[in-house]
Amino acid sequence: MKRIGRHTILLPNRPCILSGAAIAGKKEGEGPLGSSFDQIIGDDLFGEETWEKAESRFQYTAADLAIRKAGLTHEQIDAALGGDLLDQIMAASLAVRELHTPFIGLYGACSTMAESLCLAAMLVDGGYLHNAVCTASSHFCTAERQYRFPLEYGSQRPPTAQWTVTGAGSAVVSLQAHSSAICRCTHVTLGQIVDMAVKDANNMGAAMAPAAADTLHRHLTDTGRTPTDYDLIITGDLGRVGHDLLLMLMQERGMPLDPSRYIDCGLELFSPEQDVHAGGSGCGCSAVTLCGHIFEQFRQGKLHRALFMATGALLSPTSSQQGDTIPGIAHAIALEAAP
Amino acid sequence: MKRIGRHTILLPNRPCILSGAAIAGKKEGEGPLGSSFDQIIGDDLFGEETWEKAESRFQYTAADLAIRKAGLTHEQIDAALGGDLLDQIMAASLAVRELHTPFIGLYGACSTMAESLCLAAMLVDGGYLHNAVCTASSHFCTAERQYRFPLEYGSQRPPTAQWTVTGAGSAVVSLQAHSSAICRCTHVTLGQIVDMAVKDANNMGAAMAPAAADTLHRHLTDTGRTPTDYDLIITGDLGRVGHDLLLMLMQERGMPLDPSRYIDCGLELFSPEQDVHAGGSGCGCSAVTLCGHIFEQFRQGKLHRALFMATGALLSPTSSQQGDTIPGIAHAIALEAAP
Repeated sequence: MKRIGRHTILLPNRPCILSGAAIAGKKEGEGPLGSSFDQIIGDDLFGEETWEKAESRFQYTAADLAIRKAGLTHEQIDAALGGDLLDQIMAASLAVRELHTPFIGLYGACSTMAESLCLAAMLVDGGYLHNAVCTASSHFCTAERQYRFPLEYGSQRPPTAQWTVTGAGSAVVSLQAHSSAICRCTHVTLGQIVDMAVKDANNMGAAMAPAAADTLHRHLTDTGRTPTDYDLIITGDLGRVGHDLLLMLMQERGMPLDPSRYIDCGLELFSPEQDVHAGGSGCGCSAVTLCGHIFEQFRQGKLHRALFMATGALLSPTSSQQGDTIPGIAHAIALEAAP
Repeated sequence: MKRIGRHTILLPNRPCILSGAAIAGKKEGEGPLGSSFDQIIGDDLFGEETWEKAESRFQYTAADLAIRKAGLTHEQIDAALGGDLLDQIMAASLAVRELHTPFIGLYGACSTMAESLCLAAMLVDGGYLHNAVCTASSHFCTAERQYRFPLEYGSQRPPTAQWTVTGAGSAVVSLQAHSSAICRCTHVTLGQIVDMAVKDANNMGAAMAPAAADTLHRHLTDTGRTPTDYDLIITGDLGRVGHDLLLMLMQERGMPLDPSRYIDCGLELFSPEQDVHAGGSGCGCSAVTLCGHIFEQFRQGKLHRALFMATGALLSPTSSQQGDTIPGIAHAIALEAAP
């Protein structure tokens, strides 16, 4: 029986995360997690002609490195799952074009890393794929150009705004028992769209926190676990506003989080001195934090059980211009130390 | 053993397609398949204020109808999978916001209907989801605005150009044995990105045909089947140019198709008198054709075994402006008459 409770999926074969790779930008490399990244790229064009092509190179580099760290070749990858924030997920598409693997293109906004891991974990658990690579990226310059203003415009950012992370994270999921596996995937709780009528595209933490609370509540109810059954609960990029809101929302639901066991990638990635206002955001935020820092924590035996829940704001410039509210979504995957 | 050959996935539990719904626009309703659609919407705004909201309403209406035709409620749907052509898959997101089900957002361009069915079929086959709804849509007006020019501009379309279909198709996939199931899903072959350096965004048939040939070749090689083992092979929206190219490419590969058993949704949906040049396109093209006409053929006992292979061109306005070539992808799912 693979479904438990109303919404959560149990993975009886506990697929392994064999490897992870985090390729981050200069600002990210200068932050508190800098030493956990595999590569820090000082040139925001990554040697390419455009930022979009640069972001694609971040994705390809992360995926290629994760595959090699897993001791695999591209031919052994049965599917690449992933996406990014760009229109028509351009960075992911161009990256997978170079990987020459089957491609499952996803769009979950900043929840993409968790969305891809959730899918890959189920497909690998069921034997439909033997090896899968999950990748997500974002890039400050491509996101500003697409969602807000050209950089040269020099617009002001309010305190609730977040800074799109430049980086890509990639993880290989596999059924093969492997002594050096980072961790195993045990449960998946897919996100539902939650929209509490927030319209301010400069306050996405507020838009996404209700979705995070909804998924977390469903996950804990279904599994019968409490927040402290996890050494660490990790949200994607709620930022300062969303992080604090989630604490409040879970308190209201009678499932209070232990703040010392709850982190948000957007707050971990940058230091206050880096002045990113409410914190980091973008698909790459949770992707590099997971594939760098969190996987390192598992490898060092500092984590036994964690819940990774990346959150996304499913807005577009068009929907905002048309006066619509911002729908949020959060996908969650439970990870346990191998074996 | 669920994987056969290098790339194809066998679904041992043969999940059912319980129902389908096709909601089409006025021009589509006037075409040869008009009588197969559940609803034809004369107003291209569908009563909404904007075309994007209209397209979202097409998606919601299709999904809601498919769910009800399957004898299910929204609460019984374990996940909605789907997407569209819009930036940040706006139509799908807004539609699933109203469905209140878990959401797996996808981007596969015009291959989305097949991508979602492939994923849902595997997840249902494995018991990770009991019931899933797969939906894809497109809308002529939203696509023109986003990809090309405002309609008022009155631009000319070359003969190789295709017409974006206004419509949404939805199908419910389930493991429950059901006497009125339309068909069963037996095999999945996921697409790989194939890019033959076509740059002309007005000739997407040429860009996508190589990807279709690649997937079809891998599928037939892995299953040991020949094209005539299928009553019908259905491509998504290769259009006139792509359809003819595919015949040529499969001939070259030593796996000639029987033209009387091969159709392309883009060519079926509109009549020559409707002057759509090379044919219909968009996620909605294959979605409404499958969920209307093809499912009707299964219900009438006219089809025993079919291969549905929707094709997508993974370009964006940005990638085209940056001079990049057009990557293609094609996902395939094999369907057999129930039981």
